[in-house]
Amino acid sequence: MRILIVNPNTTASMTATVADSAARVANAGTDITAVTSSMGPVSIEGYYDEAFAVPGLLLEIAKGEKASAQAAIIACFDDTGLDAARALANIPVIGICEAALATTSFIAQRFTIVTTMERSRQPLEHLVHRYGMAGRCNVRAADIPVLSLEDPASNARDKLRHEIGLALRDDRAEAIILGCAGMADLTAELRNEFNVPVVDGVACAVKQAEALIALGLTTAKSGAYASPISKPYKGMLEMFEPRLMMGG
Amino acid sequence: MRILIVNPNTTASMTATVADSAARVANAGTDITAVTSSMGPVSIEGYYDEAFAVPGLLLEIAKGEKASAQAAIIACFDDTGLDAARALANIPVIGICEAALATTSFIAQRFTIVTTMERSRQPLEHLVHRYGMAGRCNVRAADIPVLSLEDPASNARDKLRHEIGLALRDDRAEAIILGCAGMADLTAELRNEFNVPVVDGVACAVKQAEALIALGLTTAKSGAYASPISKPYKGMLEMFEPRLMMGG
Amino acid sequence: MRILIVNPNTTASMTATVADSAARVANAGTDITAVTSSMGPVSIEGYYDEAFAVPGLLLEIAKGEKASAQAAIIACFDDTGLDAARALANIPVIGICEAALATTSFIAQRFTIVTTMERSRQPLEHLVHRYGMAGRCNVRAADIPVLSLEDPASNARDKLRHEIGLALRDDRAEAIILGCAGMADLTAELRNEFNVPVVDGVACAVKQAEALIALGLTTAKSGAYASPISKPYKGMLEMFEPRLMMGG
Amino acid sequence: MRILIVNPNTTASMTATVADSAARVANAGTDITAVTSSMGPVSIEGYYDEAFAVPGLLLEIAKGEKASAQAAIIACFDDTGLDAARALANIPVIGICEAALATTSFIAQRFTIVTTMERSRQPLEHLVHRYGMAGRCNVRAADIPVLSLEDPASNARDKLRHEIGLALRDDRAEAIILGCAGMADLTAELRNEFNVPVVDGVACAVKQAEALIALGLTTAKSGAYASPISKPYKGMLEMFEPRLMMGG
Amino acid sequence: MRILIVNPNTTASMTATVADSAARVANAGTDITAVTSSMGPVSIEGYYDEAFAVPGLLLEIAKGEKASAQAAIIACFDDTGLDAARALANIPVIGICEAALATTSFIAQRFTIVTTMERSRQPLEHLVHRYGMAGRCNVRAADIPVLSLEDPASNARDKLRHEIGLALRDDRAEAIILGCAGMADLTAELRNEFNVPVVDGVACAVKQAEALIALGLTTAKSGAYASPISKPYKGMLEMFEPRLMMGG
Amino acid sequence: MRILIVNPNTTASMTATVADSAARVANAGTDITAVTSSMGPVSIEGYYDEAFAVPGLLLEIAKGEKASAQAAIIACFDDTGLDAARALANIPVIGICEAALATTSFIAQRFTIVTTMERSRQPLEHLVHRYGMAGRCNVRAADIPVLSLEDPASNARDKLRHEIGLALRDDRAEAIILGCAGMADLTAELRNEFNVPVVDGVACAVKQAEALIALGLTTAKSGAYASPISKPYKGMLEMFEPRLMMGG
Repeated sequence: MRILIVNPNTTASMTATVADSAARVANAGTDITAVTSSMGPVSIEGYYDEAFAVPGLLLEIAKGEKASAQAAIIACFDDTGLDAARALANIPVIGICEAALATTSFIAQRFTIVTTMERSRQPLEHLVHRYGMAGRCNVRAADIPVLSLEDPASNARDKLRHEIGLALRDDRAEAIILGCAGMADLTAELRNEFNVPVVDGVACAVKQAEALIALGLTTAKSGAYASPISKPYKGMLEMFEPRLMMGG
Repeated sequence: MRILIVNPNTTASMTATVADSAARVANAGTDITAVTSSMGPVSIEGYYDEAFAVPGLLLEIAKGEKASAQAAIIACFDDTGLDAARALANIPVIGICEAALATTSFIAQRFTIVTTMERSRQPLEHLVHRYGMAGRCNVRAADIPVLSLEDPASNARDKLRHEIGLALRDDRAEAIILGCAGMADLTAELRNEFNVPVVDGVACAVKQAEALIALGLTTAKSGAYASPISKPYKGMLEMFEPRLMMGG
Repeated sequence: MRILIVNPNTTASMTATVADSAARVANAGTDITAVTSSMGPVSIEGYYDEAFAVPGLLLEIAKGEKASAQAAIIACFDDTGLDAARALANIPVIGICEAALATTSFIAQRFTIVTTMERSRQPLEHLVHRYGMAGRCNVRAADIPVLSLEDPASNARDKLRHEIGLALRDDRAEAIILGCAGMADLTAELRNEFNVPVVDGVACAVKQAEALIALGLTTAKSGAYASPISKPYKGMLEMFEPRLMMGG
Repeated sequence: MRILIVNPNTTASMTATVADSAARVANAGTDITAVTSSMGPVSIEGYYDEAFAVPGLLLEIAKGEKASAQAAIIACFDDTGLDAARALANIPVIGICEAALATTSFIAQRFTIVTTMERSRQPLEHLVHRYGMAGRCNVRAADIPVLSLEDPASNARDKLRHEIGLALRDDRAEAIILGCAGMADLTAELRNEFNVPVVDGVACAVKQAEALIALGLTTAKSGAYASPISKPYKGMLEMFEPRLMMGG
Repeated sequence: MRILIVNPNTTASMTATVADSAARVANAGTDITAVTSSMGPVSIEGYYDEAFAVPGLLLEIAKGEKASAQAAIIACFDDTGLDAARALANIPVIGICEAALATTSFIAQRFTIVTTMERSRQPLEHLVHRYGMAGRCNVRAADIPVLSLEDPASNARDKLRHEIGLALRDDRAEAIILGCAGMADLTAELRNEFNVPVVDGVACAVKQAEALIALGLTTAKSGAYASPISKPYKGMLEMFEPRLMMGG
Repeated sequence: MRILIVNPNTTASMTATVADSAARVANAGTDITAVTSSMGPVSIEGYYDEAFAVPGLLLEIAKGEKASAQAAIIACFDDTGLDAARALANIPVIGICEAALATTSFIAQRFTIVTTMERSRQPLEHLVHRYGMAGRCNVRAADIPVLSLEDPASNARDKLRHEIGLALRDDRAEAIILGCAGMADLTAELRNEFNVPVVDGVACAVKQAEALIALGLTTAKSGAYASPISKPYKGMLEMFEPRLMMGG
């Protein structure tokens, strides 16, 4: 099985964190390619950053599908560009937020996402609602910049721990979902520390991608995910249209 | 990986159908044990049959966990006894309805479950609602007895096909979920015939079970799935209490 | 009028509490028979205990209907086995949780259920949602074992009072519903103490049962409550199938 | 027990129909007084008519409470003025729509209200939603004026029958609720004809009123139903203020 | 453009506050007539007061339409009588609660209404739900009588400020809606003080009324807002029926 | 007042249609600038086209704000890029779908959006849900390409008419919302033809923009619409970052 993981921000060190998390849970026969988007912001913190991360993300999805990937994963917890990617690709595409929610729903009735910035809280609450988990899943923000997770000198991880503690005490959370791809390496440590299930969306998405490939299931193309209609582009953006860039 | 599948009705031929479906999608290293419940009705058609299928099911879950299964699957589309099984077991337990819904949600926005009897429609609608898929997922009944699916002389499969056609035409369904474990062997055939994703819950549940094992996730025990309190039983039913029967 | 009340746990002293509560509100011409289930756990605390209480409960429902009861009440606040009982019986069957919610909805906009164990909170929240009272009705747990309510040496009643106080202060509750059949004898005392409506589900269910009998209404049999299909049983459980045990 | 029924429209013949329906189901010891509002429109068809029916209705509620009624029923299916009446009165007040919905919810999962005029459909849908029955209960209008129900020469009853037939065929309705107090006398006839539970809100409200009296429950006064604050009135409307008219 | 504003309580000084707020935001060419209802309570605090404010309100709506108003505004935050007014009038009718909610939804994701009396909280929560803003909009009450807002000696405005502070701290409110027409003159001051958007429903309603007039949109008359059917009235209330009083 | 309208597709003739619609309803003192995005697809039909329209749209929003626009309108019915634009801009930003829904909610209880392509239906249903109009507003697609609306030889307008007819007959729609900016010029004609309110989102958005300016309300910046954090960009996309392109 060949699975593509796209980090839609342009920070290669975060891609490495993601790749490590994926490798730890992938099946023996699964070949994972983790790529960093070549265009856009170094981190995705809120709606604006998402907007500029999407074209580069879609380009990587298109390249990956051409290179025979059988499923693609978008490794940002906002599920950035997921709908557009599903319309573009014929292979299944999975967001790490939806993968984490679906997986956690099998092992807990109530759970809390702990994410980074307050401004990401509302977009995640919209996802939780759309994925049918409103009423089971709260969203908290630890008020930490995404890239601070990589900085040992910051107190980001302490803030994250503090917020997990509040979730367990005040939300009746039975499990914790880490709400940022950059937290993937903390999973095992936090499980031991808090003694509850702690869920990393990247790892979940890898297993869901393997599942869809094994089940022979690909995105339904009769509704909103119908393949894009080929049409003229104007201006400089044309050069980013994946099908054009890929020669297709 | 060792996965237990319990067919909570007492019809062994249906267990064989389920086991075949599971074997087709399991990983190479996965060892699947499919068992037929030793007690209860020969098919589960509605709330009443469910009630009598649960004790036998729980006994098999307990036996399976003692025999080192790492995850368990309940192979009835009503997700019969799922909450009680999750409270009983320490290993994760997966229902085929919830597995089918979660899996299909990655590849389609709208989908329809086609089940057997009209009386099963409302219980399934409650599950769809509880799993957060109301508004995306309709439930239809083909008005066929469960066991008629095994009878080549019945017109059960024609009725099923007819209802799938209506779902695609009238529900804006982009994918079809087969709403009975006994339909698992029809998946490939119906995909070819209707040219849309057709989803079998048994196969989905196998992949979700493998995923949870690989991810090291087990049922959260701090809420409604806390382990049962040991307490006295009165009357003949005592002999069915799994922990007692198992000597635990 | 002949009304059957089934205590689905096997503790006879709790049946006595229930019978007293029922007798206080029944009409002069109402004949109430309160029975203790002959099989299963001594108390129902969560999903697992529910599962083992159902077969014995259904047997009593069947016996009661044969003995000319005109309505049946299930005296456990989880509404244990209610759907299966409605499918089995031709007479109307009422759960004490649904009776309490429906009755309280006539006299208050917001109210809180105070139940026993934390593990029962989520099952009750599912009932509240299913009965259409989400948004009006919170659920709290006083963290007391069911049977401790009968033990004068325990501090169970103090804990219950404490939780009622929190409900009135923090939930904007205008009325309190006692979330366990074993609390029925406390109703009058707590009304006086807190000076708000305090509702006992057993008493409510008696009045609802009398109402249905007077109105000539019985369970609709065209949907999920259609009478069970007669079918073979395998294994020891067969002997518990009510129709078989009753010779029907 | 003394129960007051107020017909909030000013058509005495409809009050007689309502009183007959009430008498058929009341307990032996229940004394029912049915009064016709002295002010307002002859029938209530939509929001505008409701507005002008409320002051006269409230006056009758106040008079009834002063005359020692122990519960009051508002005999219009729009539950006209129910919230204001609950604030005014210390005795419990019951609407026939909410009584019908609560009662039917014990005997059927899905049901349909068949009302008179199309313009009443949306107000009833709002009630269905507010009472927590959205998803279980449809509303249909037979497109008949309220008073035509009393006119043997009209085809009103045929239209009603036609709409009931559609509800059973197309809504998966398992029971029918008659959506107008003026239909109360048709209940028995329609039950026989359609062989499903047919529910009259007036009869249901009588039983709910008896239940609340027996249970010793009255409207909670700590929230939106707190007793009105006495305050000056200006203009002619002052003379309709119930407390003023009643000398209180 | 000619816009009518009806203050449905009978306190003229509050009408003056409302008229000032309207004048501050109206277009140059807009002619605003603010009238005080001639009948009913001096303030509207809860369901009961609403009931007696409606007939006088409807009369003013009818008079205004006859006098060529092109749109009408109901200047009470409960949107008192809005549905009946829409049925009565051919010109569009706007409530200040719905106008405030719709307007605020363009500039904030989450917001809180701060109203006067606790007893008004639940009616406003029902409006928030009906207008589709549940989940985005909380309702708080500062526990102040409506008319105390006009009394400089009361501490009403301090209590209001306190509650706004709590909304910003605890509700994640990004904007504040003033939940009473009598607060309109505080808008600018509170914006400066709290440095968040503070929204006055009266001003919003004026702009929405101007918008509907400019867009040529009037109330749809094919559903629940169909014009009232002319019918006999009985009793003294007849003299309040707007069409009769207006000679129409 | 200075209002910017951005057509986020790159077809100038559609911008002209939009500008005409806006001019018809703008106040005398309102100066409207309608611009065509310089980059991206010639029409927006579904999720994929949206993704590529956003960067060019955001650039125009930034340019417009720098050029002293006081409010901005996004003239695509998918409300393309609305959240990102609100985060970017300090001036209020309005989508034509949300403007149409909010405006129509004042004049009708039920309404239907008729849009172009089937693949746009689901994205619009998500908007309807998010804006709180689920249950009141259906979405239909006439199955016509966006640009065919401008082609007199196509049968696009006939198909649109057909779908409007179905909405009025089958959806209980009391008003129709035209679900594409390119339909704006049809509004008057369709109102006459169908004799129900027909609503154009562009015109609505102009009035809402004028309203927000007059009310002195701008986007709340304390939540998800906090101004974007300045951060490094990598790759070619950097040159599209509005703040960079604008020198800010």
